[in-house]
Amino acid sequence: MDKKAERIGEEYFRCSDRERTAFELGIKLGALFHQFVGAPVSKRNMDVLERAIEKTIESQAFVTRVEVHIDPRGYLESSDSVFHEYTTLSGDMIDAKVELEYKGIKAQGRLRYVEELDYPLMYIESLG
Amino acid sequence: MDKKAERIGEEYFRCSDRERTAFELGIKLGALFHQFVGAPVSKRNMDVLERAIEKTIESQAFVTRVEVHIDPRGYLESSDSVFHEYTTLSGDMIDAKVELEYKGIKAQGRLRYVEELDYPLMYIESLG
Amino acid sequence: MDKKAERIGEEYFRCSDRERTAFELGIKLGALFHQFVGAPVSKRNMDVLERAIEKTIESQAFVTRVEVHIDPRGYLESSDSVFHEYTTLSGDMIDAKVELEYKGIKAQGRLRYVEELDYPLMYIESLG
Amino acid sequence: MDKKAERIGEEYFRCSDRERTAFELGIKLGALFHQFVGAPVSKRNMDVLERAIEKTIESQAFVTRVEVHIDPRGYLESSDSVFHEYTTLSGDMIDAKVELEYKGIKAQGRLRYVEELDYPLMYIESLG
Repeated sequence: MDKKAERIGEEYFRCSDRERTAFELGIKLGALFHQFVGAPVSKRNMDVLERAIEKTIESQAFVTRVEVHIDPRGYLESSDSVFHEYTTLSGDMIDAKVELEYKGIKAQGRLRYVEELDYPLMYIESLG
Repeated sequence: MDKKAERIGEEYFRCSDRERTAFELGIKLGALFHQFVGAPVSKRNMDVLERAIEKTIESQAFVTRVEVHIDPRGYLESSDSVFHEYTTLSGDMIDAKVELEYKGIKAQGRLRYVEELDYPLMYIESLG
Repeated sequence: MDKKAERIGEEYFRCSDRERTAFELGIKLGALFHQFVGAPVSKRNMDVLERAIEKTIESQAFVTRVEVHIDPRGYLESSDSVFHEYTTLSGDMIDAKVELEYKGIKAQGRLRYVEELDYPLMYIESLG
Repeated sequence: MDKKAERIGEEYFRCSDRERTAFELGIKLGALFHQFVGAPVSKRNMDVLERAIEKTIESQAFVTRVEVHIDPRGYLESSDSVFHEYTTLSGDMIDAKVELEYKGIKAQGRLRYVEELDYPLMYIESLG
């Protein structure tokens, strides 16, 4: 890993290391959602799609671990026609945990559907 | 598989079965490209991303088989900084074969970078 | 327009001109869906998003005209919280017509939610 | 705007308001990149695509202003064939400023290609 490039990158930031850690977590959750929502999802590809999302986000800067579960929330059971063997990945089907570490500061972010908000919320579960 | 739903769907089409087969092939290649281009890609996730693209497109209507190879085309070797351990999937890195069958008509489509065009071309390799 | 490049491209195809026209239509509808599904949509950006989808797909090879209407289908009216001022573009909100012409063959494709299938169907409305 | 829903959302966060502000900025830049990279871009749609990205991200929670410039960086001038009238939006073509405000804390984030890193960097230009 090229420490010089990392130091150059740092100079662009006008915030604390903790704030940058939070920012990096936000980037990863925003990326995860907007890259994969819309993907066709079926019983046949659910596992491999979960692993691909995990490995894809794990390959980004500072990420140490990603865990993804897809819950099709009834969309795949409603019918057995050719049109309903698969559905489209939506934000409320995703439960994702992203862990990263920047300059020794560990943080965990989460994307999951929150019942009381009826909304797929991205939030910080722990920082530092 | 619900044959009735399929028959209802058919009634919307104003074309021959062979033309619909070509159309379905186009949908799948357009979907593959625009769903996954932009995804972070690294040596660590290349394999799992290839499998995920395959299984994702295989889960769509009428598809029988998909084969995907990602060639990062030098982008991952140019540096070893934190910023260059991964890159972004672009169309010219993808070689994808999609096979499908509609009403007994088999077809194979391809997306691959064509040197003489300097362009990732989507085309029909065989039909019927 | 470089006719030579177009002729080179043609040589890769193993199908009739009508079948290629159908294939190109499929590519555009697959692209439209998978590029834009997942985008945040609100009352404030609906118009500009429709125009952007139109101009984006119109800029692709052989396309002559695109018309897009987004119908948020109740998602934006259900609440007035910060979480419900916008929603995520899904396939069943889109009504898109794509017209293209390849070698004098005119074709029109459509993506729209079909009530009786409970599904956003892509189909060929006219060809040749 | 439903203050109650916002308060419920807040309870999920384990961080300071400034850190959440940084996190929200990261989400928006990650979303912008991964939603729109891969979109077809040509001289004909560049303006409308810039406006659509701006309005789309502006419609997200807490965002006050977005400014986007697309620089095709030579890709559109290299040829005049049908295959080169448009190209695919990549991260290094985008210069985006995102301003948001959370609980009175103003912040500005940026995505732009940084020459010395040869990389499209997302960073915080100001916070608080």
